[in-house]
Amino acid sequence: MIVEIVTTGTELLLGQIVNTNAAFLAQELNKLGFDVLYHTTVGDNRVRMKEVLTMAANRADIVVTSGGLGPTQGDITKEVTAVLCDCRLIFHESIMRSINNYLRGLHKNVVASNKRQAYIPEGAVILPNECGTAPGVIAKTAAGKLIINLPGPPPELKDMYFKQVMPYLKRNFGATGVITSRVLNTCGIGESALEDAIKDLIAKQSNPTLALLARREGVLIRITAKAADEQAANAAIAELEDEIRKRLDKYIYSIDNVTMEEIVIGQLLRHNLTISCAESCTGGLMSSRLTDVAGSSNCLAGSIVSYTNEVKMAELGIDEAILREYTAVSAETASAMADSVRKKFGTSIGVGITGVAGPGALSPSQPQGLVYIALSDGVSVTVRQYHFGGKRTAVKYSAAQMALNLVRNHLNEL
Amino acid sequence: MIVEIVTTGTELLLGQIVNTNAAFLAQELNKLGFDVLYHTTVGDNRVRMKEVLTMAANRADIVVTSGGLGPTQGDITKEVTAVLCDCRLIFHESIMRSINNYLRGLHKNVVASNKRQAYIPEGAVILPNECGTAPGVIAKTAAGKLIINLPGPPPELKDMYFKQVMPYLKRNFGATGVITSRVLNTCGIGESALEDAIKDLIAKQSNPTLALLARREGVLIRITAKAADEQAANAAIAELEDEIRKRLDKYIYSIDNVTMEEIVIGQLLRHNLTISCAESCTGGLMSSRLTDVAGSSNCLAGSIVSYTNEVKMAELGIDEAILREYTAVSAETASAMADSVRKKFGTSIGVGITGVAGPGALSPSQPQGLVYIALSDGVSVTVRQYHFGGKRTAVKYSAAQMALNLVRNHLNEL
Repeated sequence: MIVEIVTTGTELLLGQIVNTNAAFLAQELNKLGFDVLYHTTVGDNRVRMKEVLTMAANRADIVVTSGGLGPTQGDITKEVTAVLCDCRLIFHESIMRSINNYLRGLHKNVVASNKRQAYIPEGAVILPNECGTAPGVIAKTAAGKLIINLPGPPPELKDMYFKQVMPYLKRNFGATGVITSRVLNTCGIGESALEDAIKDLIAKQSNPTLALLARREGVLIRITAKAADEQAANAAIAELEDEIRKRLDKYIYSIDNVTMEEIVIGQLLRHNLTISCAESCTGGLMSSRLTDVAGSSNCLAGSIVSYTNEVKMAELGIDEAILREYTAVSAETASAMADSVRKKFGTSIGVGITGVAGPGALSPSQPQGLVYIALSDGVSVTVRQYHFGGKRTAVKYSAAQMALNLVRNHLNEL
Repeated sequence: MIVEIVTTGTELLLGQIVNTNAAFLAQELNKLGFDVLYHTTVGDNRVRMKEVLTMAANRADIVVTSGGLGPTQGDITKEVTAVLCDCRLIFHESIMRSINNYLRGLHKNVVASNKRQAYIPEGAVILPNECGTAPGVIAKTAAGKLIINLPGPPPELKDMYFKQVMPYLKRNFGATGVITSRVLNTCGIGESALEDAIKDLIAKQSNPTLALLARREGVLIRITAKAADEQAANAAIAELEDEIRKRLDKYIYSIDNVTMEEIVIGQLLRHNLTISCAESCTGGLMSSRLTDVAGSSNCLAGSIVSYTNEVKMAELGIDEAILREYTAVSAETASAMADSVRKKFGTSIGVGITGVAGPGALSPSQPQGLVYIALSDGVSVTVRQYHFGGKRTAVKYSAAQMALNLVRNHLNEL
């Protein structure tokens, strides 16, 4: 089965946004064993979109489009699809009701243009949109080629793909062999050191293949296997993963898309422990990441963002002598912050983060990227010094990530 | 002049990397006034690459490729280009010497396969690679269409584009005019209402064009003008922008890539005012976004993340009676949070945010997405109720964005 991905939208042609939908769809469709042989991007222009879709339906069995399902005049993907399938667009009262309900739930008014979204190519499968107003479409050309129209906003596209398109494709096209990947997320080890530790495995790779990818969260190890079915692919991946874990297990904090914050909240819930943070240079980012996770309200009591020395003294009770003698960016201040916030909020664990986010150094001995992270558990206080590269937001992110990793390692040892 | 961008490589078709080269090239070629009408991605397959390049050279005047210039057997872009131009590949001793020198400089060995990189379509312009081993190529088909082969690694592609391709295109195609865009970032108005307000301008658009894009930050209005030079394009944009601002000025918070947090920090610094936040459902996100901005330490004193009722009472001094009578998610609690944090930190402004991030409702009358945001300035407290769509992290983001917008509007009125 040959698939072509057609992404639409002037913002893509102008290069104003990067085409993440094409990458997402390619990844997922490959996982199902389809051969994705072409991606094409075209603007919101009837003539050119028709030309591109016609070409795609000629050379592929399945064409998946993204974008152009919105309420505006520039949203023409369904119209062009109807032309290709030689059918009319039919108004669906039920879709209009869903749109009304969705917008009413958000206390927004339905406007006339929303009506456009309730028109669907005759005979097509309607894919309800649970995250927005634009329904998707699965239509068929006279030659039996499938045209699948998905919305452009990535959250809507992904939700519709996983809940409706993937099951549809699996049901109708079976599995023709699979390519599966697993990503091992590491933190606390650099790319070169990591490569060194598994360079024999990298050298002899064939199937599965191995790739290292440096990301702001840490270095990812991607294992990709091709096999007759998912079980065989997973078995091949598991074998290589075991070998990697023998050497690097303590650095691997999660698999695939599981985030560091999800891991930490999971550990806290399992151990029935609570946490609070005193954040200076991260400005609330660690707390915000923890609260991205559902269930965090059961273990995060709260946090104090102490962006000035006054707040550090008044809210966290940090001794003025510590700030004077060691400065705000010091192991001593980080430790006092961690211990104080833990006591103040009455939590099992307190974390203190202070550092120089930049731009620029605080003093000759305190360069941009210098960060102290402390963890207090009521028995002892651990404090670590780090030097992070990159700009202000990169330093903030790395500091929050390493602070979460410090909590993870601490909880792992319980 | 019509341009088509053809990106090649299996890693793109597999979705293993996101196609940033296409976005980069599109942006830059549009700046030069070319019409980029298609992007196509194809794998390292001779038959399909030839088909795609032939099609591109038919419908465009200039085809720019990226990738497939490396030393391996899979790198076939120059071979296919030679087929299209009906010419041979010629070995260049001088290129081989450059490759040897480059690799020696990195203390790497030249391998036999590097020789492949010294073959260039006969008569083509050679683009030396200053950041790698693969030279680029500018070749011409019999019909006079230009095929420009650039390397795949983004640093090599960008360096070659700016130093060699851009000057070549300017020299040979003159300034055929420029295409320039300006984005007006709005917050606090939905896509449909926004379209309604400027639907006459959208209907009569030709040059400049107008597009609305829904993003998590709000709806963006993109104005794109084509003109003889940058000055004329900017003047055309400014005229349309003025008309839009007459109707929607209060919703427009910034231009292009300037973030809401940068705007708010800028206003606070100008007014010499300070701020503090009491965050419940946003979990520190508002503070974290403010501290993304350099200079925020001069106006953000600090914040309290109060994720439990206990913390709301102990740290913010919220009356237990308020929490009991109105619950934690109420206008009353948000107001008390804002006022209390302002007093506690001694800042000019205090912001309180409390709501239901989800998943799920807190009670029948408190659905997911219900958020109260309050602002206290020592004279009065303003509180607003919102209903945000989307999942947990989307609700958090929208709440932080609207809270920042509330501060922006407040400071605008000073």
